[in-house]
Parts: sequence; C-alpha cells; structure tokens
Amino acid sequence: MTLHDTMIEMGDRAVAAERQLTTLGTRRKNLILEAMADSLDASRAQIKEANARDMAAGREAGLSDAMLDRLLLSDKRMDTMISGVRALVALKDPVGEKISRWIRPNSLVINKIRTPIGVIGIIFESRPNVTVDAAALCFKTSNAVILRGGREAIESNIALVNALQAGGALKGLPPHSIQLITTLDHDAVRELVQLQGRVDLVIPRGGKALIRAVTEQAHVPVIKHYQGVCHIYVDVEANQAQALDIIENAKCSRPGVCNAIETVLVHEAIAAEFLPKLDERLTAKRVELRGDEAACAIVPTWVPATPEDWDAEYLDLILAVGVVPTLDDAVDHINRHGSHHSDGIVTTDEAAQTAFNQQVDSACVYSNASTRFTDGGEFGMGAEIGISTDKLHARGPMGLEELTTYKYIILGDGQIRT
Amino acid sequence: MTLHDTMIEMGDRAVAAERQLTTLGTRRKNLILEAMADSLDASRAQIKEANARDMAAGREAGLSDAMLDRLLLSDKRMDTMISGVRALVALKDPVGEKISRWIRPNSLVINKIRTPIGVIGIIFESRPNVTVDAAALCFKTSNAVILRGGREAIESNIALVNALQAGGALKGLPPHSIQLITTLDHDAVRELVQLQGRVDLVIPRGGKALIRAVTEQAHVPVIKHYQGVCHIYVDVEANQAQALDIIENAKCSRPGVCNAIETVLVHEAIAAEFLPKLDERLTAKRVELRGDEAACAIVPTWVPATPEDWDAEYLDLILAVGVVPTLDDAVDHINRHGSHHSDGIVTTDEAAQTAFNQQVDSACVYSNASTRFTDGGEFGMGAEIGISTDKLHARGPMGLEELTTYKYIILGDGQIRT
Repeated sequence: MTLHDTMIEMGDRAVAAERQLTTLGTRRKNLILEAMADSLDASRAQIKEANARDMAAGREAGLSDAMLDRLLLSDKRMDTMISGVRALVALKDPVGEKISRWIRPNSLVINKIRTPIGVIGIIFESRPNVTVDAAALCFKTSNAVILRGGREAIESNIALVNALQAGGALKGLPPHSIQLITTLDHDAVRELVQLQGRVDLVIPRGGKALIRAVTEQAHVPVIKHYQGVCHIYVDVEANQAQALDIIENAKCSRPGVCNAIETVLVHEAIAAEFLPKLDERLTAKRVELRGDEAACAIVPTWVPATPEDWDAEYLDLILAVGVVPTLDDAVDHINRHGSHHSDGIVTTDEAAQTAFNQQVDSACVYSNASTRFTDGGEFGMGAEIGISTDKLHARGPMGLEELTTYKYIILGDGQIRT
Repeated sequence: MTLHDTMIEMGDRAVAAERQLTTLGTRRKNLILEAMADSLDASRAQIKEANARDMAAGREAGLSDAMLDRLLLSDKRMDTMISGVRALVALKDPVGEKISRWIRPNSLVINKIRTPIGVIGIIFESRPNVTVDAAALCFKTSNAVILRGGREAIESNIALVNALQAGGALKGLPPHSIQLITTLDHDAVRELVQLQGRVDLVIPRGGKALIRAVTEQAHVPVIKHYQGVCHIYVDVEANQAQALDIIENAKCSRPGVCNAIETVLVHEAIAAEFLPKLDERLTAKRVELRGDEAACAIVPTWVPATPEDWDAEYLDLILAVGVVPTLDDAVDHINRHGSHHSDGIVTTDEAAQTAFNQQVDSACVYSNASTRFTDGGEFGMGAEIGISTDKLHARGPMGLEELTTYKYIILGDGQIRT
C-alpha cells in the first residue's frame, strides 16, 4: 500500500471512530480515561524500555543534551503524565453543552449545542508526553485523533499509544479513536494535512520550518501553535521597580518556553534612567543584552542588535532592547515583529493601557504582569493542548472547550418557510 | 508594479486601516454607516450607469438570463441594499463585548474580550449587492475588508465601492478600510489567499471550482461558504403528511438556493406507501424525480439515479430519492454525500431524533421542519455574511458575532510567575 493509501485508510478509520465517539456519554468517557491511565501505569516497563531505545538512538545520532532531556521519560515524568490523564476525569465535559437556545416567532426551537470538532491531526516534536496529553484531551472532547510525533521519539510514542489503546479498549474505546503515524516518511505530514473530508483540523506545534510546511501544504483548517516572540513595553509612566521585576521574571524564570519575552521596548523619555538599571539587573542573571543604537548609546557594553534580532525567538538568556519615541511606535513594533502570542505594557497611565490593549494584536495582552502567565493551568483551564497563535476559532491557551465546535439543532412540528 | 507587489501593498494598507478601525467606537461607526447609505443613495445614477455597462458586456458575452438577472441592479434592489446598510446601525456591535472575566488566586484579572478578526478577504461571484453587504458587515465589526467580486460585475462593484468610500470618508472612515480588487487577473485570488501576516481570514462564497482553488492555494485561514447538498430523511415513524409538506417546501419554494434540498431518503418499511404520495405531490410541482433501484421499483416512471446524482447540487427542480434500510444508513449517506450544511429528519420517534441530531455532522440539523430556515434572518441574527459549511470558528449562518474573534486582556499589579 502506498503512503497515500495508508493515510486515506487512517482517515477513514478516524471518521468511523468519530461517529462512535459522538455517541459516548461523559460517564463512559471517564471510565475509559481511568482505564487508559491504569494501562499506562501497568505498562511502565515496556514504555521505559522503548524510551531507552529512543535515548540510545538519539545519543548515537548526536542529539544535544537539551534534546535528550526533552526525550527522556523518567519515572517522575511518567507519574505526571498519568496523573494528567486522571485529572481530565474531574474536568467538565464541554460536549453536549447547550450554548444557547431560542424560540422563533414560528415556534421553531433553535438549540446551539457544543459538539466535537471531529478528526484532529496533531503534529509535534520530541517530547513524548505530548502524545499522551493530546490523545487524552482529544478523547475527553470526543474527537478522534491522528498523532504525528517527532522521529526521535518514535519507539516511546508507539509504546504509549499501545498502552492507551489497550487500556481504553477494556472499557469500550472505539477502535481507531487514537491513531499514531508510525512511518518516518516526511511526506506523511503533507498527506495528513491534505486529507480534506476526513480530517477537520490540524494543530501543528513547533518551530518555523514545521509551521511553514504545514500552512503551505494544508488543504484542511489549521490552528498554529507557533513560536512566542513576546514583548514588554516600559511606558514613560511605568513603575520602574515593577518593570524590572516583570522583565526579569518574563525573561529568566524559564527562557526556553514560548511565553518568555525576547524583546523589551522602552520609552525614550525614561531610557537614560531605566536602561542602566535593566543592565544591572539582567547581567547579574547572565542575560546577554542586545540594544538598538539609542540603547547602546546609553549602555555601551551591550551588543549592537542586527535586524534579525527583532524577529528572533532566542529561547535563551538573550534579550533585545529597543528605545521607542512613543507608545504608538511600540505597538507598531510589536504587531510587526511579534508572533501575536503574549505582549505586555508596564504603566500606571490608564489611557496608555487602553490604547495598548486595544491595538496590540496578540492573543494575550498584559498590563503590569509577566507574560509567563499565558498557560492553560495559570489561566485556570485545568488542561491545555497548547497556545494558539492564530486568531480564528481559538486564540491563546486552548483547553477542552477550544477543542469543540457547535451545531444548530432545530426542532419543529412541521414548519415550512413561506 | 507587479500583481504580487500590488496585492502586498493592498494588504499593508488594510493592516494600517485595521489598526485605526480598532480605535473607532460604536457611535462613530454608526455615523459612518449612515453616511455610506446616504452616499449610495446619492450615487444611484452613476451606479446604475456602471451596472448598465456590465449588463451590456454580459449580454455580449452571452451570459444566461439567470446570470443577467443576478447581475442587474434595479431600483428595488438598490433600495434593499441601502436599507440593509441602515439596518446594521440598529444591530448590536459585538466588538469590545466582555465575553467573560475572572480573577485568579494571585489577583490577576483575566478579561476575554470580543475583537475584530482583522483583515478579511471576501471572494464572491456575480451579484453586486454582496459587495455592499460584505463591506458594511465587515465595517460594523471593525474589520478591514478586501473584496474580490465576479468579473462580470466589475463596473458595478467599482461604482458601489467608490460610493461607500466617499460617503464613509465624510464621517471618518479610515482610508483603505474597504478595498476592491479591480484587476481581472485570475492570479489575484492566489495572491490574496497567500497574504499571510496581512490577511487574517478569507471567505470564499461560491461553487466547487472556486472553493477548490482557494483551499488548495490558501496559506491563510479560510471559512468556506460552500454549496448546499441538503437532505430530508423520512423515518419509519414519520408523520407522512408533514413529510410531504416539508419536502415540497424544502425543494420547491426556492430551488436555486443553498438551503434547498437535493436528496430525500426514505425508510424502506414505509417506502411502498410513501413514495407514490411523494411522486404525486412533486410531479404536480414539475419536479423531476431520480430514484435508486428500490425507489424506481416502486415508482417505475422515475429516472434511474446515477452515482453522480447523490453528490449533485441541482439548484433546480430535480430531486434524488433513495430508500434506506435503517436510520444508520441514512446518517451514513448524509455524512458521506452531503455538504455539512442543513439536513433534516421527519419522525415522531424521539430516540431516532436524538441519534440523527447527534450523528449527522452538519451545521444545521432539523427535526420536522424545512431546511429552508438556515438563514441569518430566519435565525433572528439580523444580518449575515453567508452560511459557513466549515466546522471551525463559525458554522452555519454567520452574523456579526461570527465576524469577530477574542483576545485576553490581563490586568495585573506586578504579578510574576514563581
């Protein structure tokens, strides 16, 4: 069978599974989630063996220590993964919820009902725990899922999906509700994103190259989980001590994640006062600072920024710093160079806050707080599939509700249109 | 300037306009809408002249009478168009609405606020009134719009957009909020749907060829307004008199629209009783009936249906009729051959209704009513940009609210993540 035919068959199986998934009630789904968690727990030995093979192959292939660390399934990570599945049981099932209901003058009753999206493809890289998170979140929302993980985690992913399927089957998980693409052929991604009529949504989570390939090839809807090029703008009316705390937290608390900041913009009226303090605070944390001309004129020890710096997602202890004449210029810069993820202003001026909130075109716009709060858990959603950097359907942290759509169910007693 | 550069410039101008649009309040927007309506009214002579040129060219090019009728801007149609713009003034502005607000344990205030989508491209065919409807709906929701109409309506569209721009400008419509693609070059569509970073959404309204071209070429999100291959399933427990009324209405009241039905499926247990009645009712209305083998065995005068009939959007007085052994088979048929638009069941059996509602994967699922109600006006939305046949972001009739997205505005007083 060709790759094309294999993928079509996978799509057909997912569609058939989805039909069965729409008929499962919440209680049944929760029993299945518990069974999947039990099965992961009981399969630890096989999963860790598979993971050890991935780790060995990764070492041989010369993966970086950071990559190897992301790949590793330690007992602690297994625990977190399993308790994550169990935690979904307690979360409210959004499927079937009546979003609204109204009655028309002709007595037609219109119900707007939350439904699963259908068949979801998820494309991700390296960390095998995403496999379990994504499968469980899609299942809780009655979506069939087709997973495509990173090639370096293939053995771990196969073992994890086997455990989920075997455990779920004991309690009635419809066959093919959770499928994993096991071929390492790069073309599988193209085939997946062109399965229109069989796949309702693809969520790519990853870097520039992956996102570009998916958006250029896709014939099905895509919600991108793209990089975070996040900003803090320090306004002329900022509480500067607060600004320093926020910037340090947003840059240094975990530089490798998407809600960390990459650029700080400072109003020119306070730059001479603020930048030396910023320099002192961040060099103590071993952050490399790269300034524009105006910034480097104030702190000459900084590295002069190149044009690429303003678009970079460093994911590292590096920060670009620019001086802007007005709030307007800060907004321009952020809308042009940012990734529409999370951006903040530090100011005590309400008018500045309002203008910034209104005009910055990002999923999460902060006033006087760290961008590091962009996270399903921190938002109180309980669980998330990731952070959407798109504007359609779902924006920012995507929890269970964002994995659903709706339909209108219209009840009549013979109404016809005149 | 190449087409590519022209389109990029158009995108840049739309992005700049959008930034200004986000700062307009509802009162200002309503003043602008009134001014646009006044301007259309004052420009009737020029608009009708332009339309006459399109009509003449159309006649010369041999357009069908139906096409020419769609193209014509009569005084009555102008009146409807203008009053449509005025009617938007009274409708609630969804932009800025607080969808929800909650406070986290660390006192962060999270506001989920309704916002414009941004820059919307709308691709449509022939009817010039769509130009005005789409422009006004996008403006009311603070979206910048790039319009691409049918080539046969180009003169009318230019005159209409000129009138909207000139009238709006008097009251502060930001320049380039409403732009029309005036080149007839086919490649303009490809360029438009590949303006990622400048265009946030493309809505194609049209037939198979247009939709296919857009989805295959698009790098930006698309919400399809695709054809309506709609069904009525007559269950074994149907009120048959009601079924006849509903089918007649759904097929005959306006066969050329997307919410008219193309196929009727009948449970085999009642087929011998029901099909002759259906034949009598619809042949009286001059409907051509095309049956599957079982149906033609009961009514031998029917045309035998070919495989293509089950996927056809006739938009005409033709109806395909199939006999199904079970409700399950009806759902299978609808999910496979339908366009996920509007499908209905006629039954008095609540269990059958529930199964049908749950498993039919369509925007609007009806029980005991005509599918012809799928319409923004009939739903009570006041105005609509069209009917989405997609499942993401917006499904079914798209009103003002469906032309918005949301952002999170997070207010802090120095919170950092520990």
